[in-house]
Amino acid sequence: MPAPAQQPSRPAPVLALDLGGTHLRTAVVDAQGALTARRRTRSPISQGAAAVVEAATRQLDETRVAHRATGGEPPVALGISAPGPLDPVSGRLIDPPNLHHSLHGFALGPALGDALSLPWSLDRDTNVAVLAESRFGAGAGFPDLVYVTVSTGIGGGIITSGRLLTGGQRAAGEVGHISVDMDGPICGCGARGHLERLSSGTGIARSAHEALDTDVHAPVLRAIAAREAPRPLEAVHVDEAATAGDAVALDIIARAIRAFAAAIVSIANLFAPDRIIVGGGIAIAWGDRLLQPARDAVEAHAFRVQAARVRIVPAALGDDVGLIGALPLVAFGV
Amino acid sequence: MPAPAQQPSRPAPVLALDLGGTHLRTAVVDAQGALTARRRTRSPISQGAAAVVEAATRQLDETRVAHRATGGEPPVALGISAPGPLDPVSGRLIDPPNLHHSLHGFALGPALGDALSLPWSLDRDTNVAVLAESRFGAGAGFPDLVYVTVSTGIGGGIITSGRLLTGGQRAAGEVGHISVDMDGPICGCGARGHLERLSSGTGIARSAHEALDTDVHAPVLRAIAAREAPRPLEAVHVDEAATAGDAVALDIIARAIRAFAAAIVSIANLFAPDRIIVGGGIAIAWGDRLLQPARDAVEAHAFRVQAARVRIVPAALGDDVGLIGALPLVAFGV
Repeated sequence: MPAPAQQPSRPAPVLALDLGGTHLRTAVVDAQGALTARRRTRSPISQGAAAVVEAATRQLDETRVAHRATGGEPPVALGISAPGPLDPVSGRLIDPPNLHHSLHGFALGPALGDALSLPWSLDRDTNVAVLAESRFGAGAGFPDLVYVTVSTGIGGGIITSGRLLTGGQRAAGEVGHISVDMDGPICGCGARGHLERLSSGTGIARSAHEALDTDVHAPVLRAIAAREAPRPLEAVHVDEAATAGDAVALDIIARAIRAFAAAIVSIANLFAPDRIIVGGGIAIAWGDRLLQPARDAVEAHAFRVQAARVRIVPAALGDDVGLIGALPLVAFGV
Repeated sequence: MPAPAQQPSRPAPVLALDLGGTHLRTAVVDAQGALTARRRTRSPISQGAAAVVEAATRQLDETRVAHRATGGEPPVALGISAPGPLDPVSGRLIDPPNLHHSLHGFALGPALGDALSLPWSLDRDTNVAVLAESRFGAGAGFPDLVYVTVSTGIGGGIITSGRLLTGGQRAAGEVGHISVDMDGPICGCGARGHLERLSSGTGIARSAHEALDTDVHAPVLRAIAAREAPRPLEAVHVDEAATAGDAVALDIIARAIRAFAAAIVSIANLFAPDRIIVGGGIAIAWGDRLLQPARDAVEAHAFRVQAARVRIVPAALGDDVGLIGALPLVAFGV
């Protein structure tokens, strides 16, 4: 039995903000990871920096007031989960894709910390997620964890010997941008055959569109694309076509699953973790269709020590992960 | 300028043993990483556990006596570099390939520690190498390092925030067994298209043999294979054929270089290191033919923070790396 992850002393409670692409979530997290005064609204992220600060400040204030009304202690710090890449030291977002231009380089941490008169900690969503799962979720009690989210994109966070693997400027852990197919299709980052290009929702949809741009025989996929037009296909539609027996869609989905399995073997060999924790919309939707081939590949091909040690498990904390992680984030600091 | 790697207090001097496939090296390492009483003989590793213990004990004794004769302080500990995988806690080799069967599971650390009446530390050669390069070589002063050796096989060792990345049973860091070509040729580990299969000396030679087993037109490579027979081709022969313009050999070499570059981008994105340090016979022989395409790929395709931070540099300590690393190994403990 390995030693549990080393835990620094934890200030609590913490005011938590999860700034996602779809939702703006807030809550207060206590020392046991329990949430009070939870709020969820539509994310203002596409409207720019001023809208984000205004909406987040208002919602955090409401959360704080509601928490006080329950008799809770006042929060001692603000913990923020936001899309990466970002710089946790300066609190600035760097160049997160699909965000309003005014957020590029915006010092979100200081802006919200000033507005709420609280010390702040900020990290990218996947690092916050692995801290949450490590403390209260699927990784509790284990020192070596890799968290992978398979969703619109693919990201990750890594804990090794009980500590967040940060690398320079806390930028480490980008598990979506590792090669699995050096001759494969070009990823958003420009490299060929990265995991995100093959196994993310965006990548799966893109493969389907690229296939339909040729004269390949994919009648079901074409019919679904026509039905959805002018909206572009999403991964769920490719999966629908595959379920209906469309050979092209089946091939794209099978390749996504095989690419994920190959990447998980790489991750097991590199990190020798106790748990590889898989979250995100596609992982939730597909479940063991995604995870079991990865388990089989690790059993068959990873180093013996690594294969014997690791379990590949679903994330445990669901949509609350970005809020719960604010507690260990604030404790961890930068 | 990043903070230098955190260094524990170092007992010194240390008696060092580097048990390699070709040579058995011994020396005494002082607190500054300087070597005295260096000895090098042919490795007894193919002759089994008893031969290894007998030869290593004798040579370490000679080294210790010679060091004393120079007026040096007696060594306070024994540091051992050996082929992985192994278990640094119990001091046992696990199942290193190409070793005599009697070494599988053999408790090398305790056997030599008892014979020399010294506390011992044992780790795999690549972890010892990254500790050495971190303390005295190409990584000195940087907290985040990845060491990659490109030789007969491909291995690695990783330091993150100044600490060796160990994972479970100190098995982490197997950078040779990450996927770069999920549909590629089958690696020694059973997986398809791992870096070691495509870019190691053994992998390059195997690709050449597999090509020659078909009716592919490769006149120069065939002629060299006939010249070398009955000995099998080695990477140096494939490179010789490529230099002479053999298209099949050129393709194998180009693919080895491209696969390495793809893997280095993965490593940069995962670890956000300050330095990726590349050692091993093929890296030394090829130099910038291997490293420059990797630098170009990182510049073009790695995350912006990662690309701006990392330098991809040759190892600095050469053949002494397994001896010099005994000092930080003993200090680091297990």
